[in-house]
Amino acid sequence: MPRTSDARERLIASALELIYQRSYAEVGVQSLCERAGVKKGNFYYYFDSKQDLLVQALEMRSQELRRMLAPVFDKDVPASSRIETMFKQIYFDQKSYKNKTGQVRGCLFGNLALELSTRDERIRKRVDAIMQALMELVEETLKELIRTGELPEIDTTASAQAVVAFLEGVILFAKLRNDPELILTLAKVAKSITLAHHEQSQSFEDIV
Amino acid sequence: MPRTSDARERLIASALELIYQRSYAEVGVQSLCERAGVKKGNFYYYFDSKQDLLVQALEMRSQELRRMLAPVFDKDVPASSRIETMFKQIYFDQKSYKNKTGQVRGCLFGNLALELSTRDERIRKRVDAIMQALMELVEETLKELIRTGELPEIDTTASAQAVVAFLEGVILFAKLRNDPELILTLAKVAKSITLAHHEQSQSFEDIV
Repeated sequence: MPRTSDARERLIASALELIYQRSYAEVGVQSLCERAGVKKGNFYYYFDSKQDLLVQALEMRSQELRRMLAPVFDKDVPASSRIETMFKQIYFDQKSYKNKTGQVRGCLFGNLALELSTRDERIRKRVDAIMQALMELVEETLKELIRTGELPEIDTTASAQAVVAFLEGVILFAKLRNDPELILTLAKVAKSITLAHHEQSQSFEDIV
Repeated sequence: MPRTSDARERLIASALELIYQRSYAEVGVQSLCERAGVKKGNFYYYFDSKQDLLVQALEMRSQELRRMLAPVFDKDVPASSRIETMFKQIYFDQKSYKNKTGQVRGCLFGNLALELSTRDERIRKRVDAIMQALMELVEETLKELIRTGELPEIDTTASAQAVVAFLEGVILFAKLRNDPELILTLAKVAKSITLAHHEQSQSFEDIV
């Protein structure tokens, strides 16, 4: 079987594109190969199965997410602005998908969490690990805010889970209504989840 | 074609069960008919398509949701406790699915929002209308809290959206981790989204 140098990369790119656009169940190996311009026989040279391809595609997409969020969570950025900035970054990302395709596509990891968590343990574990890494970035931020006295002692694990859960819920509605602006509108609320009690001097209208 | 009296109801029940358990794309008309004990020819006596069946099944499930939430949002229930009680009700619902099936299945409407919003405009509109109805229940509660002076004047529409987005995000994580308890852990945060600034006397630990 001839091995072309970038067939693997093209299959991964096709998986990210097609599964994100449709769903895992709706995209078959045949369509993935057609999109990538790779013969079906060659598919199995690189991947054991569609599941195997998705696992490797998730690894690549999670690296992209890390790169996208690295400047947001950089230690030179004030901890107090990081969470809201994360929402803004996600907003720009979803908006750029809409500009390109006409559609808000949501969070690939959130999409797969709801489609496959009860059906595919291997994918579920990968998605869970990616979400966990995001929660840890948020939790580290909350801990820093406690160290600097900007937050009182709180359950940083539960708060970080709440922030990421809220993020996923907001993206769900942006997809449902094909409206990325919702992410921006609701971003300020994220701050209130962690900082509301602390920022007692802020007016309620500012927070909501 | 013989019309059996409850074939339609059995097909709807099968759709709710199978699509909730798997996904819309993964369940075909054949499986739906087998599960319902209905001949495939009879399916098209009742429904134009799988999409048509899902629309009617969503109508039934949304009525169930309304019945489940009616006591939560009853005007005899103090407005200040309704939102947290809604989270608890959803917790009991997800926990009972897990007890029966071993799996947290998530919110059927949220699952379909992420699976189909970019792919099926008819389903998207139905899911959006159901979410909108839930947001209006929450918004009415917020307005009542403003009338009674328990909340200051806020953007009740954005706040209600935030609460329901948070609910969907929390259910997403309960499904991803197959852990209904997460809903209970994070339920208290929902209150902080709308009431945090108001309840300045409450300790931050209580809210988070």
